[in-house]
Amino acid sequence: MTKGRILSGMRSTGRLHIGHLSVLENWLELQKENQCFFFAADWHALTTAFDQTAGIKENIKEMIAAWLAVGIDPEKSVVFVQSDVPETAELHLLFSMFTPLGWLERVPTYKDQVQQFQEQGKDIMTYGFLGYPVLMSADILLYRAGGVPVGEDQVPHLELCRELARRFNHLYRPVFPEPKALLAQVSVLPGVDGRKMSKSYANDIGLVAEPEEVYRQVNAMVTDPARIRKTDPGHPEVCVVHKYHGIYTRERLAEIEADCRGGRIGCVACKKLLAGGLDAMLGPIRERRREIMARLGYVEEVLREGARRAREEAQKTMALVREAMQI
Amino acid sequence: MTKGRILSGMRSTGRLHIGHLSVLENWLELQKENQCFFFAADWHALTTAFDQTAGIKENIKEMIAAWLAVGIDPEKSVVFVQSDVPETAELHLLFSMFTPLGWLERVPTYKDQVQQFQEQGKDIMTYGFLGYPVLMSADILLYRAGGVPVGEDQVPHLELCRELARRFNHLYRPVFPEPKALLAQVSVLPGVDGRKMSKSYANDIGLVAEPEEVYRQVNAMVTDPARIRKTDPGHPEVCVVHKYHGIYTRERLAEIEADCRGGRIGCVACKKLLAGGLDAMLGPIRERRREIMARLGYVEEVLREGARRAREEAQKTMALVREAMQI
Repeated sequence: MTKGRILSGMRSTGRLHIGHLSVLENWLELQKENQCFFFAADWHALTTAFDQTAGIKENIKEMIAAWLAVGIDPEKSVVFVQSDVPETAELHLLFSMFTPLGWLERVPTYKDQVQQFQEQGKDIMTYGFLGYPVLMSADILLYRAGGVPVGEDQVPHLELCRELARRFNHLYRPVFPEPKALLAQVSVLPGVDGRKMSKSYANDIGLVAEPEEVYRQVNAMVTDPARIRKTDPGHPEVCVVHKYHGIYTRERLAEIEADCRGGRIGCVACKKLLAGGLDAMLGPIRERRREIMARLGYVEEVLREGARRAREEAQKTMALVREAMQI
Repeated sequence: MTKGRILSGMRSTGRLHIGHLSVLENWLELQKENQCFFFAADWHALTTAFDQTAGIKENIKEMIAAWLAVGIDPEKSVVFVQSDVPETAELHLLFSMFTPLGWLERVPTYKDQVQQFQEQGKDIMTYGFLGYPVLMSADILLYRAGGVPVGEDQVPHLELCRELARRFNHLYRPVFPEPKALLAQVSVLPGVDGRKMSKSYANDIGLVAEPEEVYRQVNAMVTDPARIRKTDPGHPEVCVVHKYHGIYTRERLAEIEADCRGGRIGCVACKKLLAGGLDAMLGPIRERRREIMARLGYVEEVLREGARRAREEAQKTMALVREAMQI
């Protein structure tokens, strides 16, 4: 039953940017052959931003519209919001009872993240942030998912999830499969200034950006600083535009690289080429997103039906859990 | 609305003993003038005994029957089981997000209890045990209770609950009153061997004990070891029987003390006096408990109705919480 069941979520912290596209393309692949549960992780967002809740609902709606625009199919996959499934909180509470503190404190990313936030002047040493992997485990195991697409940084969390499944099965009765990590080849795009792409740096390009934004942001991309004139030989390895060509204009990449090194194409023309290609690719997504948002109440209906299907599965699992724990 | 609303719970870890009677008598007093919510804390029991869940359901039923036998009135008070109100787990999760770890680590009883369990060879350094005060806060604030009867040892937990209420109200919007601690004069009875009364020491007298048990346990009570013959002067201050007389035979206490010190009453007669009085007091409770258990499905019905009323209030609070947090 859980074979071929996949769970994945995304935080609803802001609008999606083109960096999210490779994650969604991976979801589209998984959707073809599996029963997928895709959720907007609004409770996860609270672990690091409990004091910034304004706009969460609007962000969720925008995010779901973007998922659907890219091709996530709500007839096939269960698309829902985490907080619409209160069983998650119950399973999280039950898991908390037998999760050793040491397991959580030793998650490799935990101390790093606490420190990163500290450097930004933010204290996230909360009970909820420490327990984030317990919540993530509840998300996954509530649907008895067999596989979870994760990035490298999430592997330790998934390992903890597997340990919790084992511990539950051992303490009470076998209820949970041990979900496997599906490591996806996700290309990480830098922001237009070369730093990590992030809305908070304003160096991102929206997944449903209008052409003006695409052209403006491509235009702002950092290129080889040593290149003054078009005829100077360029160094594509230090150029953000080139990194994007590697993903969006791959079929012409060798030609572009040769022209750049040979001083035969200027940065302006090179950017124009990229912006045109990028915009052509984003155009249909933008259009579908517009159609989706124009259908009054459609996203809400998708989420209502998704919550219904998710809770149906969640309740089956919780019945097994309560029976196994004898509570 | 929350004025005069009281919340209190009891762990369902085993049968009740006469030491619980003073707590229940306090509840009876509170029930007269307030809207009381009384709950069986099955999730709390997991914080220290996640691996001993067999019998929890039967224990709950027995405990509720004892409450009703003592006089808790399900028409007047809301009598329910903690895990029948899943909103508790949701509020606990939301509170976890803004509960600083330091608040929990500094709860005075936390380190003590961890150590006590360690001495018994048991490791309770779990995420759930650390978060116990968060769960207790959710229990209380879910009903926006104005008062909570607590023992001295629970005062720091209630203080943390008040801090969480303040923090929520400050971060989002005022939703919660700050519940007051109602310190009750609860008489602490020792077990028959002079140690703390506990089922696990087998030194307790059941709240619905049969006469044989009452007589047997009173007979086993530790008296003044220096007293060999009836005519030896006794030392009531070191005698367990005397402590019990102080509660159950208070009207004759002066007389009994004088007779003991004067060597005019022997320990056997003194115990017989106590056992008779104790049994006379427990008799009606025992009888009512028998009637209650004989009514097939009655306790279940009380708990079903209690859960319905509790969830009704819980859902009102959660609507306010979600609105305040904008999730």
